[in-house]
Amino acid sequence: MTQSIPKRDEAFRPGQTALLLIDLQRAWLEPGADPDHPGSAEDYFYREAAQRVIPNNERLLQAARDNGVEVIHTIIRSLTRDGRDRGLDHKMTPIHLGPDDPLALPVPSLMPVNDEILLPKTSSGVFNSTNIHYLLRNLGVRNLIVSGIMTDQCVDMAVRDGADLGYMITCVHDACGAKTQQRHETALQAFGGYCWTADTTTVAARFAALRS
Amino acid sequence: MTQSIPKRDEAFRPGQTALLLIDLQRAWLEPGADPDHPGSAEDYFYREAAQRVIPNNERLLQAARDNGVEVIHTIIRSLTRDGRDRGLDHKMTPIHLGPDDPLALPVPSLMPVNDEILLPKTSSGVFNSTNIHYLLRNLGVRNLIVSGIMTDQCVDMAVRDGADLGYMITCVHDACGAKTQQRHETALQAFGGYCWTADTTTVAARFAALRS
Amino acid sequence: MTQSIPKRDEAFRPGQTALLLIDLQRAWLEPGADPDHPGSAEDYFYREAAQRVIPNNERLLQAARDNGVEVIHTIIRSLTRDGRDRGLDHKMTPIHLGPDDPLALPVPSLMPVNDEILLPKTSSGVFNSTNIHYLLRNLGVRNLIVSGIMTDQCVDMAVRDGADLGYMITCVHDACGAKTQQRHETALQAFGGYCWTADTTTVAARFAALRS
Amino acid sequence: MTQSIPKRDEAFRPGQTALLLIDLQRAWLEPGADPDHPGSAEDYFYREAAQRVIPNNERLLQAARDNGVEVIHTIIRSLTRDGRDRGLDHKMTPIHLGPDDPLALPVPSLMPVNDEILLPKTSSGVFNSTNIHYLLRNLGVRNLIVSGIMTDQCVDMAVRDGADLGYMITCVHDACGAKTQQRHETALQAFGGYCWTADTTTVAARFAALRS
Repeated sequence: MTQSIPKRDEAFRPGQTALLLIDLQRAWLEPGADPDHPGSAEDYFYREAAQRVIPNNERLLQAARDNGVEVIHTIIRSLTRDGRDRGLDHKMTPIHLGPDDPLALPVPSLMPVNDEILLPKTSSGVFNSTNIHYLLRNLGVRNLIVSGIMTDQCVDMAVRDGADLGYMITCVHDACGAKTQQRHETALQAFGGYCWTADTTTVAARFAALRS
Repeated sequence: MTQSIPKRDEAFRPGQTALLLIDLQRAWLEPGADPDHPGSAEDYFYREAAQRVIPNNERLLQAARDNGVEVIHTIIRSLTRDGRDRGLDHKMTPIHLGPDDPLALPVPSLMPVNDEILLPKTSSGVFNSTNIHYLLRNLGVRNLIVSGIMTDQCVDMAVRDGADLGYMITCVHDACGAKTQQRHETALQAFGGYCWTADTTTVAARFAALRS
Repeated sequence: MTQSIPKRDEAFRPGQTALLLIDLQRAWLEPGADPDHPGSAEDYFYREAAQRVIPNNERLLQAARDNGVEVIHTIIRSLTRDGRDRGLDHKMTPIHLGPDDPLALPVPSLMPVNDEILLPKTSSGVFNSTNIHYLLRNLGVRNLIVSGIMTDQCVDMAVRDGADLGYMITCVHDACGAKTQQRHETALQAFGGYCWTADTTTVAARFAALRS
Repeated sequence: MTQSIPKRDEAFRPGQTALLLIDLQRAWLEPGADPDHPGSAEDYFYREAAQRVIPNNERLLQAARDNGVEVIHTIIRSLTRDGRDRGLDHKMTPIHLGPDDPLALPVPSLMPVNDEILLPKTSSGVFNSTNIHYLLRNLGVRNLIVSGIMTDQCVDMAVRDGADLGYMITCVHDACGAKTQQRHETALQAFGGYCWTADTTTVAARFAALRS
């Protein structure tokens, strides 16, 4: 079985491309919503979220929707109100958003619409605790475009685990964010070998190219 | 690491026991609901469902709830309205119940209550297409009690895959059903080596014993 | 993402087809080798094995090798001499063949050659306890052809789990065997909905067709 | 099901603790062995390897063996000589060590002995491409102690994926190494929230405490 080996920046394939938005939830993105991280809108993270991360994900989302790219949203949310289904790591941290908690939902401008898939998870890595690998196979996805928060945690693991499992991963660097700029940049460098790193404008243009 | 090897009929352990109800949905259990299997209430399957399978699962469910046994419900249901997330096998069959289809829900007397977990799936085997293995680990489950339909399909695979993955499986034979009596009985025999086969009365009594 | 839905008997695709030989080991196929199942060469199982199962698998194997079809062998074999790595089910049965046990190997005429993959497992279902899903993805396999023993156990589970995971499964019925003819035939019927069931001659001809 | 939530530095449990040595292979640790990274023994990485990483892993390994701690070795190695079974990421990098390549083996002082398990893999994350999750369950492992190379790649992913999957992870920081000191230290900080970080002396003492 001879297979040609692709380049990490290969062109996205029509009908085989999906955008994965990671943890762009009210609990983390609205200043003051997360009781464990009170913070103010002036903090680095919330400022970056409002001025860069959310707007860029809006652009990605619009470009995906306009051009028939599959969109999958993942959020941290338990199946149970008492959180007993969570992974041990989230129990220890602790981190818990219940199934009925409105703060667990994506921020309004990034909410799923129509028939888009929303995957709740209780771990950092979406591949470790959900059936996303099964879903992506059923959807025929090869090129997986990743954005969201935190660059050095849930985004990092989606990139690395996805690469290990055979997806062609793109990380949209300016649509990701972390608690500090250093953590953001260090992470992009740390997992840079497992993906193609590109910016929102470039990726949105590639989505548009899928249509024509 | 010396481990003592248990017997397949070992006593259920408190806090480590769960009841898994499989595909007890309106679409399959209400005569006429499934357009592909019109049938009448007089047919073997619907008669058995009404007189034996549903009542026995009601008893199991009550006994579990009364005695603090974790209950997990699985149903065949797609995440998307167009069913594109389904496994290839269900696309070929075809089988599809959309996320908003009321017939996808369990029959009223077997609906989840309180904080019980409901897992939609698009395959026969619940371990192949959901994150149930992850959940059972988080819940600390060792003894997994299985009932529902069809004995020779989704029940069969939950028993076998669960056994392979290290759970102590009990199949409640008189709380399972199949299209014909022969298929029901043949299946029980076929996978009998992978589990402890018991009846509803025995299992309900064991649930009660967990409390005291 | 529009996908055309295939038929279960679709033509095998060149470079995407693999033959999976299941548990065709000396321990089970040589009369007297398995201390737990002494038996004589005159018994149904050993007679069938010698006259039908082994010869048909030899034909499949030759046809695969002649025509560039990937071949994967799986056997029941522990990684450790004391068998502590085995799944709980095999510990309870008990079943154990050590890493150095010559009886764990395939019968001589069905031994792997050249660069073929041999996967040891300690469960019934090869998808539950090995990394075969990962390997098949890396190899680009879509059409998975299954044969071996026992029809109602390890073959059954490879067919069903493989179908759930999105493979196009073919079961070569006359290259499978079980302890009794009834168990063999009942199993073929039980899992017949998850695969295309064909005979050795038909499958070998399809392998040949891949070359031209 | 009430579960008490442990601390990340909980005492290791007897019979539930394993040491996982990652990629301590001749190809990476012997200066000049890896054709893609010629280097000299004077380079940071090889110096650290010889003076710190290898000796500390020798100490860990001895302490584990002396006190009945399970030891698992993982190495990067393909199942096939042509490497077609490798994950797509390793095909793109490219990275390939064949099944008969002596450089794929651990360095002599860290070779598996007796009945220890050696797991070949073709990905960065050992949980993504091997059946280690299945094995650890069968072995009854809860506390997983991780060391080896590279801190920012294969070690990083073993820590994070293992934590997501419910293991109590310990990373032995002075028994890990990376290409530069900055990458080593940055990685330890990046995944520090997913594990307990300790040094070789502390971990070896804990292994000793398991015996008494």
